[in-house]
Amino acid sequence: MPNPVTATHSLSPMLPDLSNADLRAKLQQRLDQKTKPVGSLGVLEALALQIGLILQTETPSLQQPQLVVFAGDHGLAARGVSAYPSDVTWQMVENFLAGGACVSVLARQHGLALTVADCGVRHDFLPPDGPAERAGLVVCKIAPGTADAFVEEAMSAAQCAQAMANGRALVQRLPGNVLLLGEMGIGNTSAASLLQARLTGLDIAECTGSGTGLDAAAVARKAQVLRAVLLRHEAATTPLAALQAFGGFEMATMLGAVLEAAATNRVIVVDGFITTAVVLVAHRLEPAVLQRCVFSHRSGEAGHAALLRHLGVSPLLDLGLRLGEGSAAALAWPLLQSACVVLREMASFASAGVSQKASDTH
Amino acid sequence: MPNPVTATHSLSPMLPDLSNADLRAKLQQRLDQKTKPVGSLGVLEALALQIGLILQTETPSLQQPQLVVFAGDHGLAARGVSAYPSDVTWQMVENFLAGGACVSVLARQHGLALTVADCGVRHDFLPPDGPAERAGLVVCKIAPGTADAFVEEAMSAAQCAQAMANGRALVQRLPGNVLLLGEMGIGNTSAASLLQARLTGLDIAECTGSGTGLDAAAVARKAQVLRAVLLRHEAATTPLAALQAFGGFEMATMLGAVLEAAATNRVIVVDGFITTAVVLVAHRLEPAVLQRCVFSHRSGEAGHAALLRHLGVSPLLDLGLRLGEGSAAALAWPLLQSACVVLREMASFASAGVSQKASDTH
Repeated sequence: MPNPVTATHSLSPMLPDLSNADLRAKLQQRLDQKTKPVGSLGVLEALALQIGLILQTETPSLQQPQLVVFAGDHGLAARGVSAYPSDVTWQMVENFLAGGACVSVLARQHGLALTVADCGVRHDFLPPDGPAERAGLVVCKIAPGTADAFVEEAMSAAQCAQAMANGRALVQRLPGNVLLLGEMGIGNTSAASLLQARLTGLDIAECTGSGTGLDAAAVARKAQVLRAVLLRHEAATTPLAALQAFGGFEMATMLGAVLEAAATNRVIVVDGFITTAVVLVAHRLEPAVLQRCVFSHRSGEAGHAALLRHLGVSPLLDLGLRLGEGSAAALAWPLLQSACVVLREMASFASAGVSQKASDTH
Repeated sequence: MPNPVTATHSLSPMLPDLSNADLRAKLQQRLDQKTKPVGSLGVLEALALQIGLILQTETPSLQQPQLVVFAGDHGLAARGVSAYPSDVTWQMVENFLAGGACVSVLARQHGLALTVADCGVRHDFLPPDGPAERAGLVVCKIAPGTADAFVEEAMSAAQCAQAMANGRALVQRLPGNVLLLGEMGIGNTSAASLLQARLTGLDIAECTGSGTGLDAAAVARKAQVLRAVLLRHEAATTPLAALQAFGGFEMATMLGAVLEAAATNRVIVVDGFITTAVVLVAHRLEPAVLQRCVFSHRSGEAGHAALLRHLGVSPLLDLGLRLGEGSAAALAWPLLQSACVVLREMASFASAGVSQKASDTH
């Protein structure tokens, strides 16, 4: 297997296309023979087909699902682009670890293993006088927060490559065949908006939203700041150059994790705006990544709907969520399990002795 | 407590309004103090608030959820309004009992107790030479199928009242505080379309869809048949007269179940087009029923979106499902549980030591 970190820097994608006409036909036939009108499970059938193709089986089973919350701080947050102070990043990481955050209670509800990755939080979760490790925490910190993208690149090329390698290594150590994406980082809707604007060509105003809760005037100021950042980094036009310029460490680490999960044919459950922006970068590097991604929801954050349209994907839920953390990925999770049990456990017309409509009998 | 069957025949609703300004304010405050931006859980927060009001507590817990599939046959099915033969009703009931139907596998996935109520299937599930009872089956059969609404009322007033009483009695015997609605009955999208047209005034063509899978020409023929049925029963303008005229037994039984579940302050999870049509009837009898109903999805069946709009309600899912059985109610179920764990288990800003944004601190 080629060195994946190097590979992503090349322009030649190497992730195999999942199109397998034979398996696709078998999965479709299997769905059509289940005791239900053909196509009557709508999006759930498309989901079952996708998961079957990813896991390369007619009877897919999702094993040991892993929800990883990638956390990091953003130098740009000092520019007033968020409603909350940067300290909320580490405080929320503590909240994840203590089991009190939204994603914590949802992960518990659904039996999802929850890991928090400190990719670059401005806080020491393992101080020298404390324990050497903490349950549910992986420290793969590049630096305590990125540089301020308003004045310089958020990270160096070496930092970006290291973060991606960390993400790859993290996924390599995780069991199971599903990765659910989550994130925490005050300021990271700004980084996502910048990536969206740069890589899709959409005006930054259309990519900029209220994040954790800015009012209209503050959103307008945020868009002004982001417009200046885009100008400052006019030359950062490739996916990785843009990621370096705009940040953050949690996003670069997540990018490595997504590429590794795709390379090992795991199902990737995408959360909201920030995780979708990372998938946009991954998609530019390895188009076939998208075949492995299930999009959990359309968020209330301004740019997300346009970003999903740009990728040509339809999300499962549309509940006006705008929390991040992986909360929507966790909420959508049972639908993936349902798609699998439909394929695995539902009876066929023949096995159940149920009459078919005339036009569906073969 | 007044006799409920009699009460529904009167025009004076007696279901108490759930509006409790004090509890509502407490629930909202509790949600706003959770460690997340205010309102960032969107529809899930509205759902948490609704469940809290139904169960009359700030820390709601859904107990022993009961999914009941109400089954019955329709005389009108002989008029070619369905893509499937009537025999599919009893064959699918056997499939539910054997655990192979979609709703069976979803109920198993989510730990929902599944009961099939034979309200009027043209089949004997407990023949004299067989066992006296079968696990998961309740026989409350009014008759083996309704009469043909094309030529006469689908059921008599006495049959309708008995079916409703059966539904009430069934729910009285069920434990827990949640009722999820499901149905099976070849021909019952026709009954639902007729009820919708009669009670909302919408033209029958806009209420008529493909059901289990008619093509466009067959849908047009179905609408013609239904138009004739509406004319035949021009005088059936009250909710119960319309239900009697159009059927079916499974819908009248479900109506009793919904009224009883509402009267005992259970959370009612509505499935698709047929169950929503029954809720429409219940709502006309007891407007406050709606406060107890969670609408699981917007189905692909033609009239459903208009029916939801008419009721002024927003469903949780929109996945192009058009299967019925209670499948969408089961798919939406984990979202109700999530709404509850958010209220019960998430930390507050104060308890987790997380900084709030300036405008949210009080």
